[in-house]
Amino acid sequence: MFSDKYWMNIAIKKAQLGGETYKNPRVGAVIVKNNHLLSIGYHHYFGGDHAEVNAYRNVANKDDLKGATLFVTLEPCSHFGKTPPCSHQIVQWGIKKVIVGQMDPHSLVAGKGINYLLNHGVEVITGVNEATCKNINVSYNYFYTHQRPFITLKMSQTLDGKIALNTTTRDYLTNDKANEDVQNLRAKYQAIVVGAHTAVQDNPRLTVRNQHLSHPAVRVIIAGNTDISAAKHLLEDNAAPTYIFTQSLTVKNMQVASHCRVFYKDSWNLAEIMKVLYQQNIQSVLVEGGSKLHDAFRDANLFDQVIQYIVPQIAGGDSLPAFNSLRHVEKMTHMNVKSVDTVGNAIRIITQRK
Amino acid sequence: MFSDKYWMNIAIKKAQLGGETYKNPRVGAVIVKNNHLLSIGYHHYFGGDHAEVNAYRNVANKDDLKGATLFVTLEPCSHFGKTPPCSHQIVQWGIKKVIVGQMDPHSLVAGKGINYLLNHGVEVITGVNEATCKNINVSYNYFYTHQRPFITLKMSQTLDGKIALNTTTRDYLTNDKANEDVQNLRAKYQAIVVGAHTAVQDNPRLTVRNQHLSHPAVRVIIAGNTDISAAKHLLEDNAAPTYIFTQSLTVKNMQVASHCRVFYKDSWNLAEIMKVLYQQNIQSVLVEGGSKLHDAFRDANLFDQVIQYIVPQIAGGDSLPAFNSLRHVEKMTHMNVKSVDTVGNAIRIITQRK
Repeated sequence: MFSDKYWMNIAIKKAQLGGETYKNPRVGAVIVKNNHLLSIGYHHYFGGDHAEVNAYRNVANKDDLKGATLFVTLEPCSHFGKTPPCSHQIVQWGIKKVIVGQMDPHSLVAGKGINYLLNHGVEVITGVNEATCKNINVSYNYFYTHQRPFITLKMSQTLDGKIALNTTTRDYLTNDKANEDVQNLRAKYQAIVVGAHTAVQDNPRLTVRNQHLSHPAVRVIIAGNTDISAAKHLLEDNAAPTYIFTQSLTVKNMQVASHCRVFYKDSWNLAEIMKVLYQQNIQSVLVEGGSKLHDAFRDANLFDQVIQYIVPQIAGGDSLPAFNSLRHVEKMTHMNVKSVDTVGNAIRIITQRK
Repeated sequence: MFSDKYWMNIAIKKAQLGGETYKNPRVGAVIVKNNHLLSIGYHHYFGGDHAEVNAYRNVANKDDLKGATLFVTLEPCSHFGKTPPCSHQIVQWGIKKVIVGQMDPHSLVAGKGINYLLNHGVEVITGVNEATCKNINVSYNYFYTHQRPFITLKMSQTLDGKIALNTTTRDYLTNDKANEDVQNLRAKYQAIVVGAHTAVQDNPRLTVRNQHLSHPAVRVIIAGNTDISAAKHLLEDNAAPTYIFTQSLTVKNMQVASHCRVFYKDSWNLAEIMKVLYQQNIQSVLVEGGSKLHDAFRDANLFDQVIQYIVPQIAGGDSLPAFNSLRHVEKMTHMNVKSVDTVGNAIRIITQRK
């Protein structure tokens, strides 16, 4: 007799195979009868079948579903979206028991899926391997629980925490292999944020070059009062939407290409900008900042994760720290180490807020 | 038929068991006859029997030594020191072949041991597993090859490369387990170097508290023009020698305890100080500096290894970098990653100069 955790772990493994699910959570489902596996399914891509429906399709003889048990990493949906609600279909299929990993924090579901099942005579157990299930969709869960995007600060730095020799140089610290990891990282975010200095001086594209994405991340420039007209790629390449947060009337009145949106206010703070991104339904933000932008996010207490690519170099002297400002700091921010890996020429350290 | 490398590896493993060999290198030796192991030995502690003699003692029937082969990680000595020269004894024992890991860079040996053996009809092969043999005694080899101590910079820092919130606070970043690792690290060095600021403000002991050492490291204060009379422990505790490098006539004329030595010069640079330590026969130096001292060693290009205990905290703002000065930096110093480990609450990264 296999345990609920055993079957749920199979669903979890499957969920993690989900590709570009974009705004949708990654979900896995397993259908079991008399302690035998009937089928497995998962959500493959944004707008595709939900995991439950995918598992249903994989059952050869649909009569077998009568009295079967469904394991699913996330609460089945209850609303009519791109597909009919899974909770309704589960009842129709004749499933008698549903084991759920985590409740869906999305306000359109949030218990309604489970209530529908219970009201239609289906037995429900929740919270099996809940922490692991939640980890599959960190940003999605964060977004719907805290009403703001999940924010990751990403930086390449030397062993002594410097990102460049000085503010006028662009020092290429990471090698091709580490850069490819950064590309894969970008592919997982719905917005990439840079400051005006980076946008203008580096003229970056902030796109993912090693894979095709149906929904590339919005590029966000936190422009302050700076003239950003030199950020040619972001302003003109039409490779992905570009949002410009500006305090400058000149920038506000600038003619921009159709992929650009200008958000003007005489004074923006980061909390306000994150609120706009939340309203734009952006669940996750990757900040590829310079010293000041990283420090501003820290100062505003607006970050959940830090990803550092530490290359074996020492800069020293008056070189530019990864976080820097004239702000006097009262205490350290404590983090949990999530992983330490070697990636190309870098030691990649991922930490999350305690 | 086992290979030379096979037997040498056994000698290497044994050499690494050596304890507080202090100024002596750690050495392992294996005696083999007809492809069978006769005995193993190693250098246990400073002033104790050499590895070859230790292996000799472990041979039950000394007649077996006739025609045997000796594997030894370091060239046998040729000078009369605390014990008679091993090369002479090896000839007397009747050994017919000696396989050597690395040549001894010590000017008193440096090929003389091998020449003695060759001149007395012993066959000699050198350079078997040489790199590994050299790694057993990094500082010893460095000292005799480069005529200066092997220099390690050690620091505890945050993820963003800061060692303290500011110059007036002492922030305890590492926990007990990581601190114990630092104690074990100190035990391997012949001098611990601090700047005047650390000596005065922290009033440290710079001793090894978790084990008894017969030869504790010399504590070195690079004092500049600073009044260091507040460094009570280093000046008064008699726990280990204290060397004070000062440019101040007041400090020069200060009455000091017998464990202290004052080195006065109207202007010291780090190369001169390292030369004095070399003349004092100090093979290895651990710099537990603040921002400026680390940066000065980097600026002087006087460091071979960096050991960083990185704790999962972010400081940001105007906090104090691990390496810092007003000096403009022209290029990065590239390092090789030797190891990355979790030690207590810290990620310990050890890098060596390329």
